[in-house]
Amino acid sequence: MSLYPSLEDLKVDQLASAQYAAAGYGQSNNAHYGQVHHASAPSAPLSTAPMYPTLETQSAGENGLPYPVAPTLPPPYVSGSTHLYPTLDDYMGLDVSPEALSQNMPKESFNAVMTAPPSAVATKSPNNMVAPISGDSAGLQRAKVTHGIREVVLCKDEKGKVGIRVCAVNKGVFVCLVDAGSPAARVGIKFGDQILQINGELVAGYTMEQVHGLFKKAPVNGIRVVLRDRPFERTVTLHKDSTGHLGFQFKNGEIIGLVIDSSAARNGLLTEHHLLEVDGQNVVGMKDKEISSIIEKASNVVTVTIIPSYVYNHIVKKMAPSLLKTKMDHSVASF
Amino acid sequence: MSLYPSLEDLKVDQLASAQYAAAGYGQSNNAHYGQVHHASAPSAPLSTAPMYPTLETQSAGENGLPYPVAPTLPPPYVSGSTHLYPTLDDYMGLDVSPEALSQNMPKESFNAVMTAPPSAVATKSPNNMVAPISGDSAGLQRAKVTHGIREVVLCKDEKGKVGIRVCAVNKGVFVCLVDAGSPAARVGIKFGDQILQINGELVAGYTMEQVHGLFKKAPVNGIRVVLRDRPFERTVTLHKDSTGHLGFQFKNGEIIGLVIDSSAARNGLLTEHHLLEVDGQNVVGMKDKEISSIIEKASNVVTVTIIPSYVYNHIVKKMAPSLLKTKMDHSVASF
Repeated sequence: MSLYPSLEDLKVDQLASAQYAAAGYGQSNNAHYGQVHHASAPSAPLSTAPMYPTLETQSAGENGLPYPVAPTLPPPYVSGSTHLYPTLDDYMGLDVSPEALSQNMPKESFNAVMTAPPSAVATKSPNNMVAPISGDSAGLQRAKVTHGIREVVLCKDEKGKVGIRVCAVNKGVFVCLVDAGSPAARVGIKFGDQILQINGELVAGYTMEQVHGLFKKAPVNGIRVVLRDRPFERTVTLHKDSTGHLGFQFKNGEIIGLVIDSSAARNGLLTEHHLLEVDGQNVVGMKDKEISSIIEKASNVVTVTIIPSYVYNHIVKKMAPSLLKTKMDHSVASF
Repeated sequence: MSLYPSLEDLKVDQLASAQYAAAGYGQSNNAHYGQVHHASAPSAPLSTAPMYPTLETQSAGENGLPYPVAPTLPPPYVSGSTHLYPTLDDYMGLDVSPEALSQNMPKESFNAVMTAPPSAVATKSPNNMVAPISGDSAGLQRAKVTHGIREVVLCKDEKGKVGIRVCAVNKGVFVCLVDAGSPAARVGIKFGDQILQINGELVAGYTMEQVHGLFKKAPVNGIRVVLRDRPFERTVTLHKDSTGHLGFQFKNGEIIGLVIDSSAARNGLLTEHHLLEVDGQNVVGMKDKEISSIIEKASNVVTVTIIPSYVYNHIVKKMAPSLLKTKMDHSVASF
C-alpha cells in the first residue's frame, strides 16, 4: 500500500505506474508495489487488501487486475506524443499532461518518474512516502513534524534569557513563544514543542510559573532541555493551481474557508485550524498580508503546518498579542 | 540531532554511546552522530546546534566535548561487571543495569546496542528514529500514524454495506465507525481516517448524509476511496515500570490523570485525550476493564494512539454510544 503526501502525488504516481506497465516492462503494477513496500517500509495492516488499481487499469481490464501488458507500445511519456489516458490530463484542474509535467517538474524527478520503475521514486520523501512531484520540495523536508523526542542544549544570552515562554495544557508544558535571535531560536526550538525535561527535572504537570522559574535558576551554560516535537501539529502538502492559488482563505492566521475543487479541498485541509508554518517557516503572529506574501513567493509545492484553533487559542490566551507580533522568531531554518 | 520515540530510548542510546566511546572505539560520540543522521534522515533544522552530550560526558570532560577516550577500559556493558555510570542504573525508575537490559531486551537488539556502534540501531524504528529499546516492538510498527494519503478499494457485503459511518468536522469527512468484519475493516480503514474522495468525487465540505448517500449509490465492487491517515491522532510510546504500570489513569477511554515520575509523565502523555488504539489495536467503545486487560497483556513497550477529547467528542457525538460498543472493529491488524 503506497502512501503519499498529497493527492496530486498519488495521481501522478498512478499515472506513471500505468504508463510504465503499458510500456511493456512486463511486470504487473500490483506485484511491483507489493515488493517495493515490503522492502522499504514497515508494511501497513493493509497488505491483504488489493493494491490500488488506477482509474485506467480499472477501465482497461476485467476489474483492472492484473493490468494487461502491451509490450509493443512505446513508453508514452518518454515519447511524449501518445495519450493513452486522456482523462487524467485535466484531472481535477491539475494539469498532468506530459508537456506540463516536463515543464513544471524538476528534471531529475521527471526522469525518475517517467523512465524508471515506480520503486525508484519511493524513498524520496519523509516517512517513505511516494512523492513524485512533492519529493524535491525543500519545504516538505523542512516542515516535517515527527512527534519524536530530542534533546537540545541551551545557554542564556547577555540578559540572562533563553528566549522561551511556555504555557501549561492538559498537564503538559508547551512552548508558546520563541524570541527571534535568542538561544532557543538558534537550537531550533519551535512554537508548539512540548517540554518534557529541563536539566534532568521532569516538568509534567508544572505550571507556567514553575517552568519559567526553572529556567531562571538554571546555570548560564549547558541547560539541557528534552522536547517532544510539536504534538498537536501536522502538515498538509498542497500544490498551486495554474493561477498560483492553493485554495483556502484565512483571517488572523486561522483557516476560515476552502475553495471548491482546489488543492486545499482535495488534500483535506480543515477550517478552524491555525497556520503555524509555511514550508517550515514560522508565521505565528504575522499579519495575513505577510503570510500571503510568503505563500506567493513559495514554489508550486507548499507544505503548511496547522494546529486546531481550539488548541492554538488555549496556548496563546495568556500572552499579550503584541508579544507574538513583535518578538516571535520567524527565521527560515537552514539545513 | 537524534530523534527518539520515547525518553527511555533517548537515555539508553546516550548510555550506549557513552559506553561505546569509553570502551575505546576512538570516535567521539558527537562526530559519530553527525554522520549517522546526515546519512539516514533528512537533517533537521537543528544541525547547527551542539549534539547532546550525555549526563556522563557533561561531568567527565570540560563542557563534555569531546568525550575523553579511555582506550584501556574494557567495554563495561559487554563485560557486564564494571559500572562506570552508576547514576543511570536507576534512572527515573527505569532499570538500565546490564543485567536488567540483557533480561528484558530482545537478544538481537541488546547485542546491537552494546557491541555495535550506535549507528547500527539508528534505523530500527519508523521515521528514522533511534530506538534501542522500542525498536523491536511490533506495536510501535503497527501503531504508526503517517498522516499520509492512501487509496483503498472497497466492495459491499451481502447486505449492500461497506461498513463505514462518517461525520463532518471542519469541512472534512471523518470515519467514526468501522463495522467488525466489514469490507472497510478488511482493507484497514480506521477510526479517525479522513475521507478525501469516493470514486473520484471529492467530499470536502460534504455532510454525513451526502457521504452515506455516495456509498449507497456506489456499485457493489471497485469502490475507490482515498483517505488521509488519521489527521487528528498521534502516538506516544511508553515503557512499563517494574510493577507493569505505564502511569496513567483513564475513565471511559479518556486519560484523566498521570502518575508522577511514571513513563506516561516522562513521555509527555496528556490528559483530556482519548485512547484510540493500544499497540495498533482499536479500543474505541471498549470497556475500561477490557482496555486495561489489553495493556496488561502487552509487552514492556506499549504504544498508545491518542486524540484530543475535544475532537473525539465532536466525532462521536452524533452516534448512539451503543453502536460504538457493539459494532466497532477491534481486530488486531496482521502484517
